[in-house]
Amino acid sequence: MRKLQRSEATGTPLRIKLGLDPTAPDIHIGHTVVLNKMRQLQDLGHTVIFLIGDFTTTIGDPSGRNSTRPPLTREQIEANAQTYYRQASLVLDPARTEIRYNSEWSDPLGARGMIQLAAKYTVARMMEREDFNKRFKAGQSISVHEFLYPLMQGYDSVALRSDLELGGTDQKFNLLMGRHLQQEYGQEPQCILTMPLLEGLDGVEKMSKSKNNYIGISEDANTMFAKVLSISDTLMWRWYTLLSFRSMAEIAALKAEVEAGRNPKDAKVALAKEITARFHSAAAADAAEQDFINRSKGGVPDDIPEVSLSGAPLGIAQLLKQAGLAPSTSEGNRLIDGGGVRVDSGVVSDKGLKLPPGTYVVQVGKRKFARITLA
Amino acid sequence: MRKLQRSEATGTPLRIKLGLDPTAPDIHIGHTVVLNKMRQLQDLGHTVIFLIGDFTTTIGDPSGRNSTRPPLTREQIEANAQTYYRQASLVLDPARTEIRYNSEWSDPLGARGMIQLAAKYTVARMMEREDFNKRFKAGQSISVHEFLYPLMQGYDSVALRSDLELGGTDQKFNLLMGRHLQQEYGQEPQCILTMPLLEGLDGVEKMSKSKNNYIGISEDANTMFAKVLSISDTLMWRWYTLLSFRSMAEIAALKAEVEAGRNPKDAKVALAKEITARFHSAAAADAAEQDFINRSKGGVPDDIPEVSLSGAPLGIAQLLKQAGLAPSTSEGNRLIDGGGVRVDSGVVSDKGLKLPPGTYVVQVGKRKFARITLA
Repeated sequence: MRKLQRSEATGTPLRIKLGLDPTAPDIHIGHTVVLNKMRQLQDLGHTVIFLIGDFTTTIGDPSGRNSTRPPLTREQIEANAQTYYRQASLVLDPARTEIRYNSEWSDPLGARGMIQLAAKYTVARMMEREDFNKRFKAGQSISVHEFLYPLMQGYDSVALRSDLELGGTDQKFNLLMGRHLQQEYGQEPQCILTMPLLEGLDGVEKMSKSKNNYIGISEDANTMFAKVLSISDTLMWRWYTLLSFRSMAEIAALKAEVEAGRNPKDAKVALAKEITARFHSAAAADAAEQDFINRSKGGVPDDIPEVSLSGAPLGIAQLLKQAGLAPSTSEGNRLIDGGGVRVDSGVVSDKGLKLPPGTYVVQVGKRKFARITLA
Repeated sequence: MRKLQRSEATGTPLRIKLGLDPTAPDIHIGHTVVLNKMRQLQDLGHTVIFLIGDFTTTIGDPSGRNSTRPPLTREQIEANAQTYYRQASLVLDPARTEIRYNSEWSDPLGARGMIQLAAKYTVARMMEREDFNKRFKAGQSISVHEFLYPLMQGYDSVALRSDLELGGTDQKFNLLMGRHLQQEYGQEPQCILTMPLLEGLDGVEKMSKSKNNYIGISEDANTMFAKVLSISDTLMWRWYTLLSFRSMAEIAALKAEVEAGRNPKDAKVALAKEITARFHSAAAADAAEQDFINRSKGGVPDDIPEVSLSGAPLGIAQLLKQAGLAPSTSEGNRLIDGGGVRVDSGVVSDKGLKLPPGTYVVQVGKRKFARITLA
């Protein structure tokens, strides 16, 4: 608050840090919870620093245990960062966004600087971080270098003289590290603002690419619209709170209407249109709605059975059988040949289709539906 | 053993690492337990690497908590290392000693190299180090950089391709780290050899400069001789084992003679002469013995009372009174004025003398003696 007042009085924009892990370039709408807040702050005149964590990413996981996190080359990082930036620009204002790479100040630290940085935090406080604590107690190994990463991340705030850092609630420890280190280096500590993590399409897990429960912000309008329509009513209200630009009062009024008897599908369509329009256009959102109506020939009923299956990736015929949508796999294959099977409103033509983990609305013929969460 | 055989077969000397902390340049005879073993290995044709830990020493204690360990300048480190080397050369063969500084490979590691190094060890195993474990359990803070120091020390073994590292038993964790890291870097791990820590003049605490219970190897012959004579009979046998070059059989024979009635002082004089001769000469040792006899006019009796006092630094008159060697401090001062008070065989002339912590043989007149351990 003091920072905001001073910024207004002196006409100096706040410097707002947005850390980005360039290992995963695709942005989904879960990321936009933070990005939207950033955009609001940009509209108020502040500067967002789009920080690309290339330093640690070119190292990869040096313990070699995490094979899913190989080191990236400079070119891959650059490409990922560009893809990420292009996508984020659907939300952020590029004119008020500054791009930085943290190797700029991390490499010059040297071995000595790293030791000096590590001296500024204790092992006991590091152990307070929830995941470290859990793993230590469970006897799961933590490599010493994992203690250095939050310090590096915090040091980014020092190097950037960040006034404010935003992140998901799971980043709280790391954001506070920035505050701590700024004080150690004689700077005014940054403010931190944590935003809730958005649940994915399944309504349970945090939205993430690896869970396949996400809506990518560069997905086409029809897919985006259909995916929003596929979520449960409960999740819809959560998404309203975190994703809609409507005021809390408007959302409360809408919810009251639904509680008084209005079809919740009206609210879901409105949300789907708002989100689709944001990343495409109002016209594209209208077209997506029409496409959805056409394709589903009446649409997905509001109360379809929920089914949980395991064994992903699962062949489509097997899935139909296990979900009770077909009496056998051979009957399932026959239905596919007849063009009578849809997954998320799209007709399935390939009997060899294997579905990865995720949540899908599966339709057989005109009336059989199931919302299947596959693990 | 395999390394020794291969070294003999190929005529390639083993590389033996001797790490040195250039914060404390004075070598005492406690250090020579390891140095003597090194010298034996040099005499067999192997190479000792005299490793000066300048890298971490120029950083000091970056947490700022340890005010007794300020960073040293390059010049101070160089001077300390030279002093240490000059003293160590009383034991080691300079022709087979190679001097190295660890900044040579530590600085080029950079911030990335430091992270990669830290990835090679786990927090849980680091916590197994006795002092870390104790401090963590006692709620005493450990800075994250303290985890980096044993890694740096171990990395020295990698950089030096060390075949063997010697150290005190208290260094076991760090020596094993060298083995671990060499394996991580694809090298054959060094062997380690830990030597017992020598008890100081008090027979209780490890010999150290800060406890003032030591014999410096560059102390003059008379002082060295007198200090060895001041130790207890029990400690004498321990010192025989760790410091004498006599064979275990010779020592056992000597001990048997004493047990059969020979005056233990004979054995103590023999040890004092051996040690004094090693750092000076046989002639100097003989002279020191004569000096000791002359000065003590009959010498210190074998069974003098042991007294423990606290309150160091303690004024000499106060010490005489508390040890029961004078009825009052004024009487103590009178005795000093009369030249009747000796500390470690030297006549005290200054009534203002304050004794730091340590063990002293104090004599009043011809017959009153006490071995005083002052804390």
